[in-house]
Amino acid sequence: MTVLITGGAGYIGSHCCVAFLQAGHDIVVLDNLSNATSISLDRIAEITGQKVVYEQADIRDQAKLETILKQHRCSAVVHFAGLKAVGESTKVPLAYYDNNVVGTHRLLSAMANCGVKQMIFSSSATVYGEPQFLPLTEDHPTRAVNPYGRTKLIIEDMLRDVAASDPSWGFGILRYFNPVGAHDSGLIGENPLGIPNNLMPFITQVADGRREQLSVFGNDYDTRDGTGVRDYIHVTDLVEGHLRAHEVLASGSAPSNCFAVNLGTGNGYSVLEMVRAFERASNKEIRFSFAPRRDGDVAECYANTELAHKVLNWKAERDLDAMCRDTWNWVCKNPRGYETAVD
Amino acid sequence: MTVLITGGAGYIGSHCCVAFLQAGHDIVVLDNLSNATSISLDRIAEITGQKVVYEQADIRDQAKLETILKQHRCSAVVHFAGLKAVGESTKVPLAYYDNNVVGTHRLLSAMANCGVKQMIFSSSATVYGEPQFLPLTEDHPTRAVNPYGRTKLIIEDMLRDVAASDPSWGFGILRYFNPVGAHDSGLIGENPLGIPNNLMPFITQVADGRREQLSVFGNDYDTRDGTGVRDYIHVTDLVEGHLRAHEVLASGSAPSNCFAVNLGTGNGYSVLEMVRAFERASNKEIRFSFAPRRDGDVAECYANTELAHKVLNWKAERDLDAMCRDTWNWVCKNPRGYETAVD
Repeated sequence: MTVLITGGAGYIGSHCCVAFLQAGHDIVVLDNLSNATSISLDRIAEITGQKVVYEQADIRDQAKLETILKQHRCSAVVHFAGLKAVGESTKVPLAYYDNNVVGTHRLLSAMANCGVKQMIFSSSATVYGEPQFLPLTEDHPTRAVNPYGRTKLIIEDMLRDVAASDPSWGFGILRYFNPVGAHDSGLIGENPLGIPNNLMPFITQVADGRREQLSVFGNDYDTRDGTGVRDYIHVTDLVEGHLRAHEVLASGSAPSNCFAVNLGTGNGYSVLEMVRAFERASNKEIRFSFAPRRDGDVAECYANTELAHKVLNWKAERDLDAMCRDTWNWVCKNPRGYETAVD
Repeated sequence: MTVLITGGAGYIGSHCCVAFLQAGHDIVVLDNLSNATSISLDRIAEITGQKVVYEQADIRDQAKLETILKQHRCSAVVHFAGLKAVGESTKVPLAYYDNNVVGTHRLLSAMANCGVKQMIFSSSATVYGEPQFLPLTEDHPTRAVNPYGRTKLIIEDMLRDVAASDPSWGFGILRYFNPVGAHDSGLIGENPLGIPNNLMPFITQVADGRREQLSVFGNDYDTRDGTGVRDYIHVTDLVEGHLRAHEVLASGSAPSNCFAVNLGTGNGYSVLEMVRAFERASNKEIRFSFAPRRDGDVAECYANTELAHKVLNWKAERDLDAMCRDTWNWVCKNPRGYETAVD
């Protein structure tokens, strides 16, 4: 029984491959390398001591998906592939609808045609929109505030509709909070291409001298130090949640044939707390200056983790120091990403 | 300047073709005939005295769409093509996402590649979900309650996202209430294939003897006679709204590059009022019996029509008697649809 991992060469996908291989699962990685490099696959092999079966393909190519699902006798899919930059999504929305919505439709259609009916889907806490209460529970109202977020919500809706139409499907929707960190080997991590969209890659680029300083957007939020609070989660914890979700689906012990759970720590950390933690981990000064709030940013966002604990018997275990230490280890060993490894 | 009319062989599409041809527009009809017959095109020609340019194609075939848009030098699209049966959508949701969402994505992509940037889109009052107030204004919250409705909302979102990304696009989203009736020639109308989804085709099948009686779902609603109230609109009025929307977009006088307006009469009629009106129009008795309410049905639903009047300078003009008379005329002349015309 083989698990197809779409987007498996990417940041979270590559960590998921390690977790699944180390748990004894056979996997096939599918990636179109539009925002990833196959070097990550060599690193996965280096960490696990196992060869990684890889197919370069695009999830929108349904015929090829069907060939791959059949050839490798796949029984389940972990679906990471998709575009994920909020700002870009407002500029080229049709590309987001195509890669994310149409791509997932093609993947589901291929699965249906091959009798593969289990999927773990990478969703995002962005589906909650502006929090109406905290911590965010899975039944918090959903609302997308940009095309990227809309594609995540649309896919969630599509999965629920498919699940309702046929009880033989099983879907685990995992809503990520803010994944950071890297494998503790420093061999895989978030590969910086272009201007980072998130805080942690920005901080690392200040720490390693690529940027002068960090802009901290907003210091007048109603939080303990005035800066925004987010629920950062170590990518290794995150992918262990995927492993548990896969096992729950495969064992038939899921609470329903389409469940959604938050993957977060339940702890909120402020931007300044993250900066301080990174300074400790890297022994570098992170220069920063305050800038005005950005449109659409909220003061605080963190998960209620009870349902994940109940459904998946899973809790995030790694703290902010581990997130920063592992990120810095990865960056030091790969200063400009995979193609610049340092021995 | 030619207007591409997708789904132009269907019920509303065929009436739209007549309106556009009679207003002097050149049109090309695109239809895959999955739920229509090309006989309707002969009838359009008979009504208008003009040959109908027709391409049999599927909106999901982007390459073919591009060829058609270029070959006919299209400047705008009126987009009717799509699946529309609520019950079916819960059984085969992937087909609905494919035909409606993916299909519209392909159409938009083809339009982008050909520089065609004006579209009128067939949406539905179903996007309002259960009314929180009446009459329904365009800023009433939206909420889909089945896969069909979700595809309409998703397409609306996609159009808004595309419009926001590039001001050179222009979209008119038309939210239909309950279209009924037929062209007053009796040459085109709603072609019954399978079990009707809506009240009027059911009534006609009782009137013409195909069915014993009508089931009226619910007689204990908080309405004037206890039966559900809907905003029925004559299809001829409806397509005149499309013509106006097209002209508003083409003249650059739209209130924004993506506007949504209700197409309804603003009047609600109950099921029993419709039955009585049809009895008058047909001079037949419509037998009926009461049955329990159906899940998801609401007591009343009707449009606020102010925005349509303001933006389109349009109002529905045909009353319930005209709707019934024209429906009955069509059915008498085509007892089992287009293939059974009676001289």
